[in-house]
Amino acid sequence: MKTGQQYEDSLRKMKFKVYLQGELVENPVDHPIIRPSMNSVKATYDLAEDPQYEALMTATSHLTGKKINRFCHLHQSTEDLINKVKMQRLLGQKTAACFQRCVGMDAINAVDSTTFEMDKKLGTNYHERFNKFLLQMQEEDWTVDGAMTDPKGDRGLSPSKQADPDLFLHVVEKRKDGIVVRGAKAHQTGAINSHWILIMPTISMGHDDADYAVSFAAPADAEGIFYIYGRQSCDTRKLEGGNIDVGNKQFGGHEALMVFDNVFIPWENVFMCGEYEFSGMLVERFAGYHRQSYGGCKVGVGDVLIGAAALAADYNGAHKASHVKDKLIEMMHLNETLYACGIACSAEGHKTASGNYLIDLLLANVCKQNITRFPYEIARLAEDIAGGLMVTMPSEKDLHHPVIGKVVEKYFKGVAAVATEDRMRILRLIENITLGTAAVGYRTESMHGAGSPQAQRIMIARQGNLEQKKKLAKAIAGIDH
Amino acid sequence: MKTGQQYEDSLRKMKFKVYLQGELVENPVDHPIIRPSMNSVKATYDLAEDPQYEALMTATSHLTGKKINRFCHLHQSTEDLINKVKMQRLLGQKTAACFQRCVGMDAINAVDSTTFEMDKKLGTNYHERFNKFLLQMQEEDWTVDGAMTDPKGDRGLSPSKQADPDLFLHVVEKRKDGIVVRGAKAHQTGAINSHWILIMPTISMGHDDADYAVSFAAPADAEGIFYIYGRQSCDTRKLEGGNIDVGNKQFGGHEALMVFDNVFIPWENVFMCGEYEFSGMLVERFAGYHRQSYGGCKVGVGDVLIGAAALAADYNGAHKASHVKDKLIEMMHLNETLYACGIACSAEGHKTASGNYLIDLLLANVCKQNITRFPYEIARLAEDIAGGLMVTMPSEKDLHHPVIGKVVEKYFKGVAAVATEDRMRILRLIENITLGTAAVGYRTESMHGAGSPQAQRIMIARQGNLEQKKKLAKAIAGIDH
Amino acid sequence: MKTGQQYEDSLRKMKFKVYLQGELVENPVDHPIIRPSMNSVKATYDLAEDPQYEALMTATSHLTGKKINRFCHLHQSTEDLINKVKMQRLLGQKTAACFQRCVGMDAINAVDSTTFEMDKKLGTNYHERFNKFLLQMQEEDWTVDGAMTDPKGDRGLSPSKQADPDLFLHVVEKRKDGIVVRGAKAHQTGAINSHWILIMPTISMGHDDADYAVSFAAPADAEGIFYIYGRQSCDTRKLEGGNIDVGNKQFGGHEALMVFDNVFIPWENVFMCGEYEFSGMLVERFAGYHRQSYGGCKVGVGDVLIGAAALAADYNGAHKASHVKDKLIEMMHLNETLYACGIACSAEGHKTASGNYLIDLLLANVCKQNITRFPYEIARLAEDIAGGLMVTMPSEKDLHHPVIGKVVEKYFKGVAAVATEDRMRILRLIENITLGTAAVGYRTESMHGAGSPQAQRIMIARQGNLEQKKKLAKAIAGIDH
Amino acid sequence: MKTGQQYEDSLRKMKFKVYLQGELVENPVDHPIIRPSMNSVKATYDLAEDPQYEALMTATSHLTGKKINRFCHLHQSTEDLINKVKMQRLLGQKTAACFQRCVGMDAINAVDSTTFEMDKKLGTNYHERFNKFLLQMQEEDWTVDGAMTDPKGDRGLSPSKQADPDLFLHVVEKRKDGIVVRGAKAHQTGAINSHWILIMPTISMGHDDADYAVSFAAPADAEGIFYIYGRQSCDTRKLEGGNIDVGNKQFGGHEALMVFDNVFIPWENVFMCGEYEFSGMLVERFAGYHRQSYGGCKVGVGDVLIGAAALAADYNGAHKASHVKDKLIEMMHLNETLYACGIACSAEGHKTASGNYLIDLLLANVCKQNITRFPYEIARLAEDIAGGLMVTMPSEKDLHHPVIGKVVEKYFKGVAAVATEDRMRILRLIENITLGTAAVGYRTESMHGAGSPQAQRIMIARQGNLEQKKKLAKAIAGIDH
Repeated sequence: MKTGQQYEDSLRKMKFKVYLQGELVENPVDHPIIRPSMNSVKATYDLAEDPQYEALMTATSHLTGKKINRFCHLHQSTEDLINKVKMQRLLGQKTAACFQRCVGMDAINAVDSTTFEMDKKLGTNYHERFNKFLLQMQEEDWTVDGAMTDPKGDRGLSPSKQADPDLFLHVVEKRKDGIVVRGAKAHQTGAINSHWILIMPTISMGHDDADYAVSFAAPADAEGIFYIYGRQSCDTRKLEGGNIDVGNKQFGGHEALMVFDNVFIPWENVFMCGEYEFSGMLVERFAGYHRQSYGGCKVGVGDVLIGAAALAADYNGAHKASHVKDKLIEMMHLNETLYACGIACSAEGHKTASGNYLIDLLLANVCKQNITRFPYEIARLAEDIAGGLMVTMPSEKDLHHPVIGKVVEKYFKGVAAVATEDRMRILRLIENITLGTAAVGYRTESMHGAGSPQAQRIMIARQGNLEQKKKLAKAIAGIDH
Repeated sequence: MKTGQQYEDSLRKMKFKVYLQGELVENPVDHPIIRPSMNSVKATYDLAEDPQYEALMTATSHLTGKKINRFCHLHQSTEDLINKVKMQRLLGQKTAACFQRCVGMDAINAVDSTTFEMDKKLGTNYHERFNKFLLQMQEEDWTVDGAMTDPKGDRGLSPSKQADPDLFLHVVEKRKDGIVVRGAKAHQTGAINSHWILIMPTISMGHDDADYAVSFAAPADAEGIFYIYGRQSCDTRKLEGGNIDVGNKQFGGHEALMVFDNVFIPWENVFMCGEYEFSGMLVERFAGYHRQSYGGCKVGVGDVLIGAAALAADYNGAHKASHVKDKLIEMMHLNETLYACGIACSAEGHKTASGNYLIDLLLANVCKQNITRFPYEIARLAEDIAGGLMVTMPSEKDLHHPVIGKVVEKYFKGVAAVATEDRMRILRLIENITLGTAAVGYRTESMHGAGSPQAQRIMIARQGNLEQKKKLAKAIAGIDH
Repeated sequence: MKTGQQYEDSLRKMKFKVYLQGELVENPVDHPIIRPSMNSVKATYDLAEDPQYEALMTATSHLTGKKINRFCHLHQSTEDLINKVKMQRLLGQKTAACFQRCVGMDAINAVDSTTFEMDKKLGTNYHERFNKFLLQMQEEDWTVDGAMTDPKGDRGLSPSKQADPDLFLHVVEKRKDGIVVRGAKAHQTGAINSHWILIMPTISMGHDDADYAVSFAAPADAEGIFYIYGRQSCDTRKLEGGNIDVGNKQFGGHEALMVFDNVFIPWENVFMCGEYEFSGMLVERFAGYHRQSYGGCKVGVGDVLIGAAALAADYNGAHKASHVKDKLIEMMHLNETLYACGIACSAEGHKTASGNYLIDLLLANVCKQNITRFPYEIARLAEDIAGGLMVTMPSEKDLHHPVIGKVVEKYFKGVAAVATEDRMRILRLIENITLGTAAVGYRTESMHGAGSPQAQRIMIARQGNLEQKKKLAKAIAGIDH
Repeated sequence: MKTGQQYEDSLRKMKFKVYLQGELVENPVDHPIIRPSMNSVKATYDLAEDPQYEALMTATSHLTGKKINRFCHLHQSTEDLINKVKMQRLLGQKTAACFQRCVGMDAINAVDSTTFEMDKKLGTNYHERFNKFLLQMQEEDWTVDGAMTDPKGDRGLSPSKQADPDLFLHVVEKRKDGIVVRGAKAHQTGAINSHWILIMPTISMGHDDADYAVSFAAPADAEGIFYIYGRQSCDTRKLEGGNIDVGNKQFGGHEALMVFDNVFIPWENVFMCGEYEFSGMLVERFAGYHRQSYGGCKVGVGDVLIGAAALAADYNGAHKASHVKDKLIEMMHLNETLYACGIACSAEGHKTASGNYLIDLLLANVCKQNITRFPYEIARLAEDIAGGLMVTMPSEKDLHHPVIGKVVEKYFKGVAAVATEDRMRILRLIENITLGTAAVGYRTESMHGAGSPQAQRIMIARQGNLEQKKKLAKAIAGIDH
């Protein structure tokens, strides 16, 4: 397994092509806007070295029997599924940000069982290829970006019906040695902190969209791949050089557009190519795993936000008010409900044909559906407790100003025993999670990551077994036929 | 294990003293208002005989190694805890009512670990006594009423400060051979369908309330015990002799006041007597188990209600409307969230000192807190889909009336292919669960059973570890001290 | 204007044909199940006699300049519209039930302006006829049942496409002297307490449904009209002769199926006959007025429920708990939000072509949409504060029983100073509104009366002016074209 | 009345001392971060010139009979109160931001009636002084910053008990010619765009806090007053020079700390000085008016956000999805509920002793309480419809980049007919309101402006007349005493 430092060093050796706010970035690892997101991924390496977190952060490879980082692991039991969620909560607590590495873990678990079942049905041999990739990933302790979402263009049209055929990533050429692909993947979480990318189709497809049913792995800095970095609320505060106004100095997340400008992929790294009838399964499983994930990571961020809100009340002397206590209870209640859903879909998981474990799809979708609601309410309650000061406070430059610094200190003091700076730090942290860079992860990603709310509702309708419920009702009502 | 019939016969042999609406009931088993509640308990015996439900309905006794009804079982693993919840969901689905036997199961599990720890700390020997009782219970396949809630009088006063000392059940005499108790237990679910009762104190107590810190078992028809049966909405429809308007002809629940008029309890059946410092533990554990229970039983009733709402839409031709579909999805989503909480607090359970398994207390309280909300919303959505007809329909006597019967049939017809009677049956079932006798179980019991909402909030505050959350926030915010 | 007694006497003279639970009722006025609903309507006469309520309960006829009961009045100003809502809140407070007379008031106001505009466009002369009817209604101080909702059969089919053509009321014969109609109106609120009925079509109709586009007035006991009385939760408690368990001894509501078995209507009482293109306007306006109404009446019932919940807390000593106080605040907040909507759609009303005032349609629909939600939450909170005792209490026969009466008194005592009977009365009142007969009015009628929730959403979509909102957004976003 | 240009010019003549992110600002009017907020206030002048908005934007002075800007007006009728709300909705629609001038309007209306009643009771003559100030304000068409909120320090301590006596603004010296004050007002909306400030105490006070019970007017750039400008999420995007990423190029709001460093106030501008028993009335009335205000301005911003969400769906082809339509309906429903509350508290207003009109306090508090909830849900739904792209889009510099600009255009295209730039503009507008600079106004200000949620709950408890509700319940329940 890599140390955090080795991970960072390994990234530096890569030749990423990244555009950020109109400029080509020389050194992504040290760019002040990107760096905090790298730190979050780095934490997945660092914590794996820490004995107290070993049980959650590492697992035993089913391929080699070696200890590996859990992010490279295929879940071998429901306990593994539960530990995954606990690991994610831990990392959410430690980073208060999106640590990005889950998408790869969720992708390998989905690709594994899907290629196995595809091979069995169609006589292909993707699963063996995939296992070779997986072995390497485990041996090298790679961070892999599992990439699914295409730009999609007009939501009313299927991939092949779009005005521009590239709005979904597709195969443009099949050669003896491999394939050439064109298109893009949007909203790529942590792509620029990844060694490899693992591409999957974005929706269930039909015959006409066969060229779009493609899955493969590639180095994240492969020839023809480049990135355009997405803006986040308050991103440029990271350029200001301070350490209060950013709210979370050390950690962050990132999202980028990943563009494939006629990229060549050798066959050994291709895991689906035209088998459109299995695109739905792959999507459903990846999404299922990823919807489970949110029952861990967002809960961890929620823990930090609840703690910050409690401190904000301590710092202004409102902590004894019964309504403040009650709001903190409500925040914890909602947060633990999310966690319960993450745990439940894990505990109710089952073994797939390929041998790894899949979460309970219904409960994983229920989990994510709650994630599209409760973090918003937790954030609202945090803003309630924080008070208006969170958005009317001056900058840290004012706090440190030779003339008005003492005025800031004087008038933004809460309880006498607490330094004004500490109060500002806590309020900026709440701002960071509710309105700032981390709000992208805590709010919008909770909404749309792993599929927008309506996607879960469709799955709940499909998995909810309404017909059996009707039978139960008929039996009680005495309707016989 | 008893068969359902044996259970029914065994009840007939008991000498219950029950008052119901001003009359002393001769034969509770066959009283039309009580009978459906007996049928629900009977189902816990019948289903245990059914091979397809054996895995959920039965367990292996840790005392004897014999197969026993799961309701008599001490949970030996987290799998047992999960299976308990699944069994409860199954029974909720089969009865659409409160099947009452959970209180005993939850009580024995709480008394077991509490007496063990009490003995260890105080040198008492309650645990051994309790084990003898438990063995008998398993051998005889008893239904036991776990009884906790006292009438409580003035909520602002502790037991010993009440104007009437009997408003909490207490020891009035300690004799060589046993104790004499006086007082009452209110809201006793299924008491009159039980063989034995297992009494527990209702709150954490202090030194002054030592006489109120008492736990014991007694035959449900012991000398000096009598019952006053509680009214339920629409209870007298069961006296009308029909089978549509009742909504649920076969099954129901019941609640009663259990009065102790100087009842003698031999020492061998006493499991706590004055050890007030353990009353809190016993309450917390029983409540914890029982809060878990609701994540099973109410979900099962919810399944029936969702099925009924779906049928109501089928029957009036509204099932294709997108808003109807969406409401059904929402109902399933909420219901499965409750289930997820039930599963999660089970999966996260742990072994107690005495060897049985306790649920995760935080998650069990979170589970119950959601139960105080979501069934109300599910019911609201069911009423939305059902339409106003649910409360404006004439009676079944009108449907069967020689003159106007055909008018009722004509004008209450929905889609042509469905009999008006079937439509009426489904609407009456929805009425039963949302407004009628079963609403007592699905709504009010969801609110107050296993403790009112505020009780869970106090536990969430206590178990939520706010101090650790504050530390997490400080670490992220860069507050060092 | 009639006194309450005169109203009651006038009803006795009518020849209603009413079936109730399989029997033809001899004397509806004194039938114990029907009587409380008559008392509610009677209150609309009694309060109009009371000087302190005169300003709200009466108005000046625009036809005659005489003082009339406001229920017979065409609104002449926004102040009239506001006073209507205030009158309804008052009556809700005084009866804690549906007082039924609003449907007639809302119907006359809708028919007035619609017939005026219809005549103007089509050259018909319905408005003059209607004015004659209205004059009589005002002179005689009639209670009129405004009747709109047809049974509707299969919701997926239009009136003329139903398997049974009578599932929507329609004209079966046009004669020189009048028309003959057949069909039924369902969910008829207060029909059997009304002197006349005013029939309107139930939906917007097309050319094929012209026979169904019919509006007319008829005496409520006209030849060929008969009624089948709808069951309500707990209705038969009114037959038991007590006065506690009913919850609300004096007042109630009722719903009935009104059947038209080839009823002859003379032309002078026909206000629409085939003008299908105006059926939509009539429906929209009646529904609009009636959606406003709920912003008054349900708020009044809510006031009683909030007061009852507060007393329940006073009576068990929990009134000082901060969570109880907060729940009462939340109940008041929700209730006043409903009232605000009722007031706002009135204040924003405008004059129609015929001269009476119409509410703001958007806000009236918003009002009703909230009514489909908040009373459920208010009821849930009331059940929370009430405690489980509400559904586990024994009957008043037990309270008055020679043997166990004192036991009931002893163990159901809350704070020492309050009589157990008073506590039971308050809890039974809460039961009545949340689960019992009044729950039909407070819950299901709030949901479906004046149109089910989806009907309001359609109107909100139509009235919400989304296109203008898009223009506003474009202007801000700098999108020019 | 001033034109917008005259207003802008008048500001330039003032000598503001403003610190912004560590620097003393030379020219606030043209500072790119401050300028958009000035534009919003300017719109209150510009629209008053526009004939189509004249009825809402202007009023007739009760002092002079002249046409004045409504922001300088004392409400003379409930129609004035309603028009105030409509004007605010209009301005919210036109600016999608906080236009800041309401605080002054609400302050003058509160100070007017309070000084009148204070003079009457205490024999002071503040009202006359205030009228002179008001006359000048109307004549000069001033923007006045009504300033209430003190820094407050430790929330558990009263003003005089704070460790630092300046944490509430107070009188430090009384001189013949006037008073000297020290302290600060926090969260000052639009202070730097104001000509004058009107200071009020922040809470109801007792005898010990007499020095803190002070109200006065001063020029916003008076000697000894200086400002520290508050940071907003994404504020520095305004420095980048583009016009897409800011979301709302033209308009904005601002908040600042206003510091009083021993400022002298001549007696003629003092309107309260030590009369602590009237501080509560002043607070309650100002807060009441300001809580009404939010039922206008936030509704207007909501209109823009709803329009933007609808366009986002149009632009990606999802606008026909039933769930999208339904979410837009829900957003409109919630937004109109807020408006209804604003209208209702106005329609139910009443005349004060001094002659101006006061809103209904209960309904105004209900209005604001809803404002602390619904904008959050509207924002959540907007984020749902917007999709994840809102937070993963690259910057406008990328869109305009010579190399990758065409890539951005290609892959962020939605429906073919809409320019990528337009799609980006709309998503940036949604980001602006939900996460960016305008989120400060739409979310946090909705939460805390005019008092935090708990402040309204206290008022609802006080105004809700629970005792009368108990009486109603007793009457229905048959409890006589």
